[in-house]
Parts: sequence; C-alpha cells; structure tokens
Amino acid sequence: MITYEYEHFKNDIQHLSTLCEPFKADTIIAVARGGMTLAHALAMALNIRNLQSIRAESYDGKSQRNTVAISGQCDLKGSKKILIVDDIVDSGETMASLVPILIAQYPSATFKIVTLFSKPSARIQPDVFLHEARDWIDFFWERDFLKTDLL
Amino acid sequence: MITYEYEHFKNDIQHLSTLCEPFKADTIIAVARGGMTLAHALAMALNIRNLQSIRAESYDGKSQRNTVAISGQCDLKGSKKILIVDDIVDSGETMASLVPILIAQYPSATFKIVTLFSKPSARIQPDVFLHEARDWIDFFWERDFLKTDLL
Repeated sequence: MITYEYEHFKNDIQHLSTLCEPFKADTIIAVARGGMTLAHALAMALNIRNLQSIRAESYDGKSQRNTVAISGQCDLKGSKKILIVDDIVDSGETMASLVPILIAQYPSATFKIVTLFSKPSARIQPDVFLHEARDWIDFFWERDFLKTDLL
Repeated sequence: MITYEYEHFKNDIQHLSTLCEPFKADTIIAVARGGMTLAHALAMALNIRNLQSIRAESYDGKSQRNTVAISGQCDLKGSKKILIVDDIVDSGETMASLVPILIAQYPSATFKIVTLFSKPSARIQPDVFLHEARDWIDFFWERDFLKTDLL
C-alpha cells in the first residue's frame, strides 16, 4: 500500500500543473468524489475559475467489468478546453463511461483526462498523469478525515 | 492575516463533521471554488456519497454590495437533507444568492449552510461553522499550489 500524504500531493501539484499548462484549459471538471481535492488544487495552480464537478459511482457488475453510473450535468457552454480530473484511473471504466457523454454533449470542445495515478492495465490512459499505480493508494482524503475513534 | 494550514484543517474536519452528524445529511453541495476541498473532506468524514458542486463568482458591484453570479445546476432529486459547504461566509452575498435558488427548486428538501469561518458582519450566518473570521484567512489551497517561482 502506498500512503499518499498531503506533502506529497503539494509537490505533485507543482509538477502536474506544469504538465497541464501548455493545454491552456479554461475549465476543470472534477470527478466526484475522488477528484474533488485535486481539481480544486489544479484550478488554483492554473488560475482556472470555471471549476465544476460530475458524479461517477462504481458498482460491482455481474460481468467482469464494473458498472459506472454517471450523474449530474456540467455546463460547458463557452468552455473550449476542459480538463477532466480524477485521483486515479484504475480500471478505466469511469472515464470510458464519462468521456463519450461529454464529447457527445459538447462536440466542439477539447477534453484532456488528468490524474495523479494510473494503472497500466486500465482500458483508457489519462492524457496527463504522474505515477503508475502498482499498489493500492491510500489517499490522504480517504484517511485523514475519518473519526479518530474509529482508527 | 491568519495562515490556515493543512494540519489545522485536518483537526477542524474532526470537529466540523461531529457538529454536522446530527443533521444526518444525505447530500453535500460544494460551493466552487472555495468550498471544494472542504466539501470533499466532509463527504469522506460523514460517509456521504452524493457530493456535487455549484459555482458562485463575486464581481465588484457598482452599489455597496458585490454581485454574485451562481452558475451550474445541482441534481437534488432524491436528496432530503443537504449541506451547502463553503470555506467562509464573508459578506454573506454568496449564500444570500444561492440558498433561495435551491429552496425554490427543491422546496421539500432541508438545507444547512456549513463553513469553516464566518464574519460576524455577514448578512447570513452559517448553520454550522467553527471560527469567527476577524482577519484575512490565507487558506492552504490558495497558497500551497501556486508556482514556487512566483512566490
């Protein structure tokens, strides 16, 4: 298990935002819940005011692949270059469900997938990511806010 | 100026989530951008999967009050108890613009405003908050992700 602390995240945002800069995005979509803190950080680093979110929830599917339900609606009128931000691309099912919906709704916009981690086995790889996920990642937002009496 | 570090935030989430627990919220709305990291943290602490966001942007008004533009749309069908989460209630204009819109759209839902800080002079006070804002707050998400070569 990789323990991913806030200090690591802070340094990573410097690198990740530098990699995202050339795209000159005008909008960020956070994939909730996992991508919310990262999307906020990138919005601040890149000075992007248009920060929105969409929900993706995974359910154990009966077939080999998990099912992902996308809910919510982004308003991308006036957006041309959009970063879709999540903490990790794991199986790739979330992005495989989400990206075609956004492209169909906004065919003239350009989308880039940005994550901190990606699994080499994922169906879809992010356009920009920092680390290969070869182990379970224990993100600080999944651990630091749990009630201490439960730990 | 109050420098609000991640370690302070981490402790605050323990207290803030304890104060929010009795409400038994099923949904969290983050006010973007400022409320995104806090809303994510509360969603994890309170184990609330329905995490959404809405945009609020302040513009300098010609009159005494600033103008706040609300954009985006939440999907609160099926939500009964909703936390509206922002980092700070400052003038109160954001909440004064946002809350009536949500109540009009979802009259049967119950809303609670939750922030870390609130100014005593604000038009609207949060239902739950931790600190009075008597000085400018320098939140870590407004500082830690800026390019170091700019600092």
